[in-house]
Amino acid sequence: MSDQPATPIQAFEPPYYAVVFTTVRTQNQSGYSETNDRMEELVKDVPGYLGMDHAQTPGGLGITVGYFRDADALRQWRTNAEHRAAQQRGRDDWYESYTLHVAKVERSHGFTRPTA
Amino acid sequence: MSDQPATPIQAFEPPYYAVVFTTVRTQNQSGYSETNDRMEELVKDVPGYLGMDHAQTPGGLGITVGYFRDADALRQWRTNAEHRAAQQRGRDDWYESYTLHVAKVERSHGFTRPTA
Repeated sequence: MSDQPATPIQAFEPPYYAVVFTTVRTQNQSGYSETNDRMEELVKDVPGYLGMDHAQTPGGLGITVGYFRDADALRQWRTNAEHRAAQQRGRDDWYESYTLHVAKVERSHGFTRPTA
Repeated sequence: MSDQPATPIQAFEPPYYAVVFTTVRTQNQSGYSETNDRMEELVKDVPGYLGMDHAQTPGGLGITVGYFRDADALRQWRTNAEHRAAQQRGRDDWYESYTLHVAKVERSHGFTRPTA
């Protein structure tokens, strides 16, 4: 994800949802990058999609956090047919293990260093 | 965090809290590593602390997700004096920007690849 700007997604006005997806990948990453790029495009079409943070420790844990305005947005994304096919492919090939936590944000805040 | 095992924290029985902390660091990381190690030890003393996931894109975004059983556990950690001093040091020196999202997990699940 070297093309992703290194800026955290901002704090939105609660309530909203954060979907935390933590992964360890397998050696077989054939097709992963293309599918991942496609999912990042596709999710933008979901009404109520707010944004995404991603970090990947080389050879270690990956964490993706998606932000959504409400439960409707979550359901649209969860039930998207192309997304479901990608999830299945992930279990078949790309992920050694993962955990998904779906959580409603109760409060949030951000910090940006003042320019000197 | 090369000493951290590359295994996602498991899905707990909801409800529980996920605290998502996304960061971009400055060039000045003097003292960061020691303080980070100390915080990782200190949080383990908080009753209701469940675990932590961390991923860091080299030169990019870092994401830490802490899991806590309830609001009491969150408050204990948030108000810990040593933790507060570390937070201040983070704003003074270590973080270019960050966002904190405090969220109550409504559902979660995990996947582990079956051993062939």
